[in-house]
Amino acid sequence: MLAHHFDETKLNRLENRVKLYGNNMAPNPRRVHIFMAEKGITCENVQLDIVKGENLSDEFLAINPRGMLPTLVLDDGTVIDETVAICRYFEETQPEPALMGTDPVNKALVESKQRHMEWDGLLGAMEAFRNAFPGFASRGLGGNVGTVEAIPALVERGKETLRRFYERLDGQLAASKFIAGDDFTIADITALCTIDFAAGAARVPIPEECANVSRWHTEVSARPSIQG
Amino acid sequence: MLAHHFDETKLNRLENRVKLYGNNMAPNPRRVHIFMAEKGITCENVQLDIVKGENLSDEFLAINPRGMLPTLVLDDGTVIDETVAICRYFEETQPEPALMGTDPVNKALVESKQRHMEWDGLLGAMEAFRNAFPGFASRGLGGNVGTVEAIPALVERGKETLRRFYERLDGQLAASKFIAGDDFTIADITALCTIDFAAGAARVPIPEECANVSRWHTEVSARPSIQG
Repeated sequence: MLAHHFDETKLNRLENRVKLYGNNMAPNPRRVHIFMAEKGITCENVQLDIVKGENLSDEFLAINPRGMLPTLVLDDGTVIDETVAICRYFEETQPEPALMGTDPVNKALVESKQRHMEWDGLLGAMEAFRNAFPGFASRGLGGNVGTVEAIPALVERGKETLRRFYERLDGQLAASKFIAGDDFTIADITALCTIDFAAGAARVPIPEECANVSRWHTEVSARPSIQG
Repeated sequence: MLAHHFDETKLNRLENRVKLYGNNMAPNPRRVHIFMAEKGITCENVQLDIVKGENLSDEFLAINPRGMLPTLVLDDGTVIDETVAICRYFEETQPEPALMGTDPVNKALVESKQRHMEWDGLLGAMEAFRNAFPGFASRGLGGNVGTVEAIPALVERGKETLRRFYERLDGQLAASKFIAGDDFTIADITALCTIDFAAGAARVPIPEECANVSRWHTEVSARPSIQG
């Protein structure tokens, strides 16, 4: 699919060097896919079905004992999990285009905004979905944690969190083109994946009155990295 | 206090350049204090009482609308919140000693481990404490989020999370001097502040059988940055 959007000669093809375990339906693997597409990096992808528990199979736990996706495996066997850590690896190995900030202050501000999106938005969306989805009734936390009963009270709390998230973000995007200022960064990727997941899985779409969030969402969704 | 442990002539004194809002009892501000002490950086500190809600005063919300601590203010008025983003600022402006990794792979692995400590440990400790503490009965989430009722079921879930955290960490520290390998990093700081907070506020101390965690905790706690 990338061929329709990117100059193929400029792709950084890592198919024989790194392997990414993920799931196309889940927001965290999607964050890494978009981050890589923005940099024109491709690699081998392995899809695991989270609902079926393929991330908790003995085979995958031998690779990542936490059972979390995405997980990146380098050709020397080094295993890196956690979305932002995987993005850091690609940012450090291929700095352009910069997606995690430029000078020290900008890097700190991008990291701060990225974390706001995670803690103020994505965590709430995860809680709203996970504690309502029947398939996760005994998987109230993600990954290799054994039986953890869902907590129904987290569903409404997560939805309330998302409403606050949209309202605050709308105020910020009234004065800012992207989440962390004038440039597209990892903070936009986290926000986009949070909002699409909130709208779909947690059923809390962008409120009509949040016109600035809608403007930003339309613009960002049109990027080749997101459509690819 | 630092004078007993550091060569004063080597301190990087930023008292007139940056101001840090925090709280000595809370784990996140403590993470930044230790990070700065490791680098020998000092600055102006402002203490806010979270239980009394000083972080939610109009005066502080004018600085940080999220009402979260720690918050760093630069001399040009730039505001940086989120513990790891503040640490990133200091890491970028004063790289030595490196606390967030060295080469690309090491930086990614340190970031990954740091995040394991947050999501697998600190989040659980926060949930176990916040949802049990009477003073936070209507402040079930931190910061400027209005009334959020505590969810009692999160107390036991948080304690279970901490027990898993200790057990997994003990296995890792059997083969590793520090959390992310041979060097002390931000991952150790997050782990130490998580464990001390878990033992104190959430009443889940290191289990006796976790001898490797205890060994590591004793060694790390003896560092001047932690004692200071």
